[in-house]
Amino acid sequence: MTSPPLITLLTDFGAGSGYPAQMKGVILSVRPDAIVVDLSHEVPRHDVLAGALLLEACAPRFPPHAVHLAVVDPGVGTARRAMCLVDPSGRRFVGPDNGLFTPFLGGGRTHLIADPKLVRERASATFHGRDVFAPVAAWLAGGGDPGAIGPAIVDPVQLDWPAAELRGSELHGQCLLADPFGNVLTSIREVDLGAVAPVAVNVAGRAARVVRTYGEGCAGELLALVGSSGRLEISIRAGNAAQLLSITRGAPVVVRMR
Amino acid sequence: MTSPPLITLLTDFGAGSGYPAQMKGVILSVRPDAIVVDLSHEVPRHDVLAGALLLEACAPRFPPHAVHLAVVDPGVGTARRAMCLVDPSGRRFVGPDNGLFTPFLGGGRTHLIADPKLVRERASATFHGRDVFAPVAAWLAGGGDPGAIGPAIVDPVQLDWPAAELRGSELHGQCLLADPFGNVLTSIREVDLGAVAPVAVNVAGRAARVVRTYGEGCAGELLALVGSSGRLEISIRAGNAAQLLSITRGAPVVVRMR
Amino acid sequence: MTSPPLITLLTDFGAGSGYPAQMKGVILSVRPDAIVVDLSHEVPRHDVLAGALLLEACAPRFPPHAVHLAVVDPGVGTARRAMCLVDPSGRRFVGPDNGLFTPFLGGGRTHLIADPKLVRERASATFHGRDVFAPVAAWLAGGGDPGAIGPAIVDPVQLDWPAAELRGSELHGQCLLADPFGNVLTSIREVDLGAVAPVAVNVAGRAARVVRTYGEGCAGELLALVGSSGRLEISIRAGNAAQLLSITRGAPVVVRMR
Repeated sequence: MTSPPLITLLTDFGAGSGYPAQMKGVILSVRPDAIVVDLSHEVPRHDVLAGALLLEACAPRFPPHAVHLAVVDPGVGTARRAMCLVDPSGRRFVGPDNGLFTPFLGGGRTHLIADPKLVRERASATFHGRDVFAPVAAWLAGGGDPGAIGPAIVDPVQLDWPAAELRGSELHGQCLLADPFGNVLTSIREVDLGAVAPVAVNVAGRAARVVRTYGEGCAGELLALVGSSGRLEISIRAGNAAQLLSITRGAPVVVRMR
Repeated sequence: MTSPPLITLLTDFGAGSGYPAQMKGVILSVRPDAIVVDLSHEVPRHDVLAGALLLEACAPRFPPHAVHLAVVDPGVGTARRAMCLVDPSGRRFVGPDNGLFTPFLGGGRTHLIADPKLVRERASATFHGRDVFAPVAAWLAGGGDPGAIGPAIVDPVQLDWPAAELRGSELHGQCLLADPFGNVLTSIREVDLGAVAPVAVNVAGRAARVVRTYGEGCAGELLALVGSSGRLEISIRAGNAAQLLSITRGAPVVVRMR
Repeated sequence: MTSPPLITLLTDFGAGSGYPAQMKGVILSVRPDAIVVDLSHEVPRHDVLAGALLLEACAPRFPPHAVHLAVVDPGVGTARRAMCLVDPSGRRFVGPDNGLFTPFLGGGRTHLIADPKLVRERASATFHGRDVFAPVAAWLAGGGDPGAIGPAIVDPVQLDWPAAELRGSELHGQCLLADPFGNVLTSIREVDLGAVAPVAVNVAGRAARVVRTYGEGCAGELLALVGSSGRLEISIRAGNAAQLLSITRGAPVVVRMR
């Protein structure tokens, strides 16, 4: 059994806007047998970091033959470059060169989308997702060679990636993104915690109890746990932590170890 | 023509959260030829009854080779069991043993998900949809034998299912769930009404006129009709009945017969 | 390689309502190999013009073997007719005869859905999307002959289509629809502007600067540009033009030429 071409889509367009559908129409015009999967079309508008975090959580769950097309692109139609990335494990990404692929850039090969045969003849100035990225992604998913797309980009744009910082026996980080449940992802990853279980977590000045799963909390209790993304999450059992605590990006998180 | 494996997804995760996408990535890693269809990812958070009602409306519309993966799972990571159900007509369901599959439990075979080979090696404590249910559903959709998943569950959790009650010439029931149009599904089913057309319907103290289709109502008029789900629905033509009447679950509905 | 049957869906049902899923279940029961793509399920409720505009933007992006099933259908269950349209370029559409297909009607062949073998035996009075249109669309996508569906409709319902009007050196039009970014589509199309670039645009009494792409604007500046749909759009860089200007359908737009 050969696998049908597989393409994932991540945008800030809104699922019901018709824009993701137009991209799918272009993809299926190139590869009528393609499977197209939506990662999300609800990335907060123009929030490149949020898009990069969602991509980091989702793309590794897909088989290696998937091509990941992502568009969070405030600079569309300006001088920002269009690119294709092949990361060290062979995953392929197509989209704007604006930092959206930061989690996968290290050690990868990056190509400028330059071959005019691959893009739609009259590319619009406002919708490269449909006119540039979709045909390139469909072509790659069908077996096209990334090296044929264009010359290497030697200086791809990278986001200033939020990380955890060890200060004595404390890990300092920040809040990044809330999911629809109001669980807040932080910049502290399971790998930062190492083998040592955290003993106390403080977020924006409030103590959170360290648990293993949501169900261990009491109703209304502020919790901290390593979530399914491998990041420390702040959560309220049966409540929306992001809303109730008015947590926004950058709010400080401190983990006391041992 | 053999049918590709078919899996439906129902969750309370939110379509744009990235969580349904991660489940699809796992499914397509196991079965790259699978067709995955979203039933809904907008089940009200942790509302197991709402999930069960949506599943009751949707699953029977699919061909019998579909596997239905459903996750509305406030108890994830706790002692609640994971299960696979084969209902009397051969439909297969995968998800938590918390009553979500109540409409299909009668006469079905229920298996505990116990075979460690079927789940992801390091299953997270918070995302069994991705790490436990998705691989099992993909395996079943590809032809796996439900009996090999684990021992029978003899006492699956069942919801207290809302039904209609005949009192003299009246049927008494309750409001259950509003759709996005504000049409309110009730616990009174077409089969409860039998061959006799209702003559009067009262919901939360207001009279509703019995019609056959929405278009028969006047603007603003409160209507009662048997909807496409086979349940009595309360509706306002060109209006949102649930919002305008502040109807919530449990509001009483009375149907006078003949 | 033969292409799998391809069906697109456009409705005002809400993606999470379960109704689009039920339509997919019916389609996959007829054609288990079908690819089903959502155009949008977030058309404003009962807004047939909005549905027609979205269909106009999306359908031409798909390959010609696609069948486009669209349901924005306030008159479901009443005397309004059900129809199949084959437009001059061979695109096929299935849905209510209420003007939803107006952009594609010119020169097309229109058939009344009359063959009882094609629809579900006990079609509900409230959900023709599932019980009438889905089986017909699946049958067409699998190679069925539109001419076998029923007799011609000689007077299909057409919407009063909003157009641009030339008055001296000015084009007069109106606002039609906002996308999720708040960009407002107008009734003035690129083809109306011809080869002459507009020099000034006025919308609802305010001046908008003519640009080529969103990125050229200053923050907060009102812009006018030809968008990806081939229509003049009103936009605010990094802002929601529709909300900030309270623009609604019918707001006047004037373009001064040369």
